[in-house]
Amino acid sequence: MEEIIKNAFIESINNTRRGDKREEVKKIQEKIINAKKIVVATNNQKKFKVIRDIMLRICNAEIKMLNIDTRFADLTRMPALNKGLMAVDTEKADLYIARGRLGVPGSGSMLIILDEKGRVLTAALSPSSVIHKEDIEERIKKELIEALKRIGIDI
Amino acid sequence: MEEIIKNAFIESINNTRRGDKREEVKKIQEKIINAKKIVVATNNQKKFKVIRDIMLRICNAEIKMLNIDTRFADLTRMPALNKGLMAVDTEKADLYIARGRLGVPGSGSMLIILDEKGRVLTAALSPSSVIHKEDIEERIKKELIEALKRIGIDI
Amino acid sequence: MEEIIKNAFIESINNTRRGDKREEVKKIQEKIINAKKIVVATNNQKKFKVIRDIMLRICNAEIKMLNIDTRFADLTRMPALNKGLMAVDTEKADLYIARGRLGVPGSGSMLIILDEKGRVLTAALSPSSVIHKEDIEERIKKELIEALKRIGIDI
Amino acid sequence: MEEIIKNAFIESINNTRRGDKREEVKKIQEKIINAKKIVVATNNQKKFKVIRDIMLRICNAEIKMLNIDTRFADLTRMPALNKGLMAVDTEKADLYIARGRLGVPGSGSMLIILDEKGRVLTAALSPSSVIHKEDIEERIKKELIEALKRIGIDI
Repeated sequence: MEEIIKNAFIESINNTRRGDKREEVKKIQEKIINAKKIVVATNNQKKFKVIRDIMLRICNAEIKMLNIDTRFADLTRMPALNKGLMAVDTEKADLYIARGRLGVPGSGSMLIILDEKGRVLTAALSPSSVIHKEDIEERIKKELIEALKRIGIDI
Repeated sequence: MEEIIKNAFIESINNTRRGDKREEVKKIQEKIINAKKIVVATNNQKKFKVIRDIMLRICNAEIKMLNIDTRFADLTRMPALNKGLMAVDTEKADLYIARGRLGVPGSGSMLIILDEKGRVLTAALSPSSVIHKEDIEERIKKELIEALKRIGIDI
Repeated sequence: MEEIIKNAFIESINNTRRGDKREEVKKIQEKIINAKKIVVATNNQKKFKVIRDIMLRICNAEIKMLNIDTRFADLTRMPALNKGLMAVDTEKADLYIARGRLGVPGSGSMLIILDEKGRVLTAALSPSSVIHKEDIEERIKKELIEALKRIGIDI
Repeated sequence: MEEIIKNAFIESINNTRRGDKREEVKKIQEKIINAKKIVVATNNQKKFKVIRDIMLRICNAEIKMLNIDTRFADLTRMPALNKGLMAVDTEKADLYIARGRLGVPGSGSMLIILDEKGRVLTAALSPSSVIHKEDIEERIKKELIEALKRIGIDI
């Protein structure tokens, strides 16, 4: 991953970068499919189960919940991202999956997948729950499927 | 906005927060619709025009391009977000709209709308261009319409 | 400020940047000395008083405490910075002063001064309290004086 | 490290946290002293040499320069930190040392030490070069010694 990122950085510096490459997307797919340990940044059993069941269809990993309360990430500028970073900082894993508010209160939700160093691999967004009333577990399921689909993993 | 955020923070601290509220989404809508000055964090004339044309249908604002090269944001962990912050830091405006890569190379793109202090109001994602080949201007148009729709502004 | 930052960005892009300039430091000094409203990101009355007393010697501002609990910023990667951003997001002011842990537990403390958009104007660090046992109010006083001194404001 | 951070997070949630602990500072010291590979986020040979020479007095590590241009980090809100993250994202190592501007142009400089996941272990600040004219290599040397001293590593 480091090598791929370095090459992309050098392309950006040289102004020769022309969008994502097949090998970059491939690398993200591999990191997700080959994960041996995944931490889901939630302490809600139901949300955890939805995410675990989908992930087990694409990878053979140990998947665990975070046993600390992540709601305090809501006091930051990007709650979903910061929930993920709370997991990165307190657990060793290959992947971290977090779900929470995108930005300011009212800005809807984001599901985000981070790698072992906290780098953003993919994500998906949902409208604010006020706008689009739907069962929360159903929504999380759609978000995770969407997050995987946009980097080429179809379920 | 500050008052609304403070109330949401206090709810999170007290563990009484139950998702986005109608007044919070309303406030985001107002900030967007009442914007008097908008800066688009791109120095690409075509991408700028797509975004300007849509924004002019919902608000009566002066809309300008950023006249510095934003490609160096690609050397950060979240390029789209950091493009937006480059605009926040170098221009006075009510809204900032940025579009770029979501995270690592291969992670697809994000369009993000920030307020005058750099707070995240809404966003939208697209698959990696390798996955979903579509005209870039068409994609940006869809992203902006989606970003507005998810906080209740239909075009 | 926006103009000054833009010029510095352009110099960096063009590889002509040669360190801080007198006018840039001058601008930071002006922002601090001319502040009309300052929010201190603490809900501790004693720490607040130390900071207020020093700031009143250099500027004629209304200075207030944040009335929300900032300790949850300790669950982020940079607690002092995130305390400051909690204040930026929940209060309107010209300056925000925060003090807390620099990074991981054990990394000692940081006092940081942010402007109205959350940009970092100056800061000061102290050793971990385990290393250097000193009265906390005395330490905060030294940090603030140091933070001001390094951008040319002597008290 | 993950375990120590988790315990500190739980203390903060429970409002029982009382400042840094001896074992936390000890853990930071160990991570630095036991590092096997260190990346210095600079492409300047002289600055690299100053940092390498000091680090070799306390640890037995392979130390290398980053061979990409880090000056574009100057277009972010916290240049020194973002230089460090550029190194984290493009190289595998146990420690990353970066040095650059603290915040806005004029805000002086910061030297920062990050661990393998990009967490902040320690740092040191210098006044803006306009304020305190001193040889840059001499300054970097003092910063690194100071950064180590504040977490209990004396040279």
